[in-house]
Amino acid sequence: MRITIIGSGNVATHLAAAFKNAGHRIMQIYSRDMHNAALLAYHVGAEAINDLNSISQETDLFIISVKDDVIVPIAQELAKHGKLIVHTSGATDLEALLAFTPRAGVFYPLQTLSKNKEVNFLTVPLCIEGAAENITKELEELARSVSNNVYRVNSGQRKILHLAAVFACNFPNYLYGVARELLTAHQMDFELLRPLILETAQKVQDHLPVEVQTGPAIRNDQATMKAHLRMLEDEPALKLIYNVLSQAIIKNDIAGHER
Amino acid sequence: MRITIIGSGNVATHLAAAFKNAGHRIMQIYSRDMHNAALLAYHVGAEAINDLNSISQETDLFIISVKDDVIVPIAQELAKHGKLIVHTSGATDLEALLAFTPRAGVFYPLQTLSKNKEVNFLTVPLCIEGAAENITKELEELARSVSNNVYRVNSGQRKILHLAAVFACNFPNYLYGVARELLTAHQMDFELLRPLILETAQKVQDHLPVEVQTGPAIRNDQATMKAHLRMLEDEPALKLIYNVLSQAIIKNDIAGHER
Repeated sequence: MRITIIGSGNVATHLAAAFKNAGHRIMQIYSRDMHNAALLAYHVGAEAINDLNSISQETDLFIISVKDDVIVPIAQELAKHGKLIVHTSGATDLEALLAFTPRAGVFYPLQTLSKNKEVNFLTVPLCIEGAAENITKELEELARSVSNNVYRVNSGQRKILHLAAVFACNFPNYLYGVARELLTAHQMDFELLRPLILETAQKVQDHLPVEVQTGPAIRNDQATMKAHLRMLEDEPALKLIYNVLSQAIIKNDIAGHER
Repeated sequence: MRITIIGSGNVATHLAAAFKNAGHRIMQIYSRDMHNAALLAYHVGAEAINDLNSISQETDLFIISVKDDVIVPIAQELAKHGKLIVHTSGATDLEALLAFTPRAGVFYPLQTLSKNKEVNFLTVPLCIEGAAENITKELEELARSVSNNVYRVNSGQRKILHLAAVFACNFPNYLYGVARELLTAHQMDFELLRPLILETAQKVQDHLPVEVQTGPAIRNDQATMKAHLRMLEDEPALKLIYNVLSQAIIKNDIAGHER
């Protein structure tokens, strides 16, 4: 497939590399910043552009991978070319594109992607939505050429996924940072905690989180929780987080809430 | 070394197996519950007992791996044998044992251990403290026979580690459960999120958490956070968690707080 990518951020970078590796042709990379466009374009053998007027008709698919609030103006601009247009946003409806073209879809990779961190793209879940069945099938085929985890997900479900990803990825990563801060303040290396962090994530690869919950809150071990809160006396923000999460764990346990 | 283990829970089970595999002799396994004692004792070729009066003198080391609040009465009982005694608790001072014997130490594995989940014990960080240098050295040698990650950690540091582990393991696991609940409520499989969870933990194996933080809060993307909060309208507990953690991420970012 001939693919044009609008954007040069984390998602655009990983998608471009994955498509290139799978034998697709990356035609152009657009970025407002020519330096960023050129950097990514060079890696995938594409033409770098920083002006939407330079967009070539020689493509089968436009992938819009930019900040959510500029998806609409870019889609409006691209629609005149009459090609298939998809965006990669978890939080944006398919409707955002349908306002300008019926040939629209979504190609949402559910993974935390950083430019400087390689990832095995075959394991990245790709969430596909098309404005019509033939579009969904075309996008599915494209997705299967780069990943073994392809799912059909509608706009409502995708928004839930995006929210769930905040709980499953962004918040845990922040808490890793809190843990590191505590260690650093007491002359200990973050290295001590890395095996624990990895094992915690590995455990839920073949168990449900509720089956492997450990710690003072799930045991309702008030003495330990009080001791921990005393240690956080000078850190009101951390104390609040500790309290809110511990209470949530305790309440779910006590209520026997099925999870 | 001849080792007697008091307890048959998650930590006792993994320690007994690791010592056995490293060529040490497990002499006795004590549990109040004879069934549990027998189950673990059978696996490691030890004698099962459920009465502290049946403790044999034929050992070099007592490892107390029981709930925090019964460490003291058990240590008091064992002290008369005059052997080296350690506990495995992150939250308990070495002093708890020193009240009864000078030959005391701590052997704290910093890992989330479940009976039904195997773990490569060589990667488990073991935090060692001894009441005297010769004891510390003896415990270090023992620790190195089962793990490649052995650290000297004093009682104050160990308490911080225990607290940090709540942030790095217990809280993230709870948040995985929240994410799963959101998916289940909208007919999606937890499988969709598992690669994201694993990658998030893998990222901080060679990066610092602050370097790889993603999501709406770190971008201070108010529109997305408002949309997420609207989706949580009927879940006040989750709304609170979302708000507290997002605000913490935003504030740390804005303050440029070094982490």
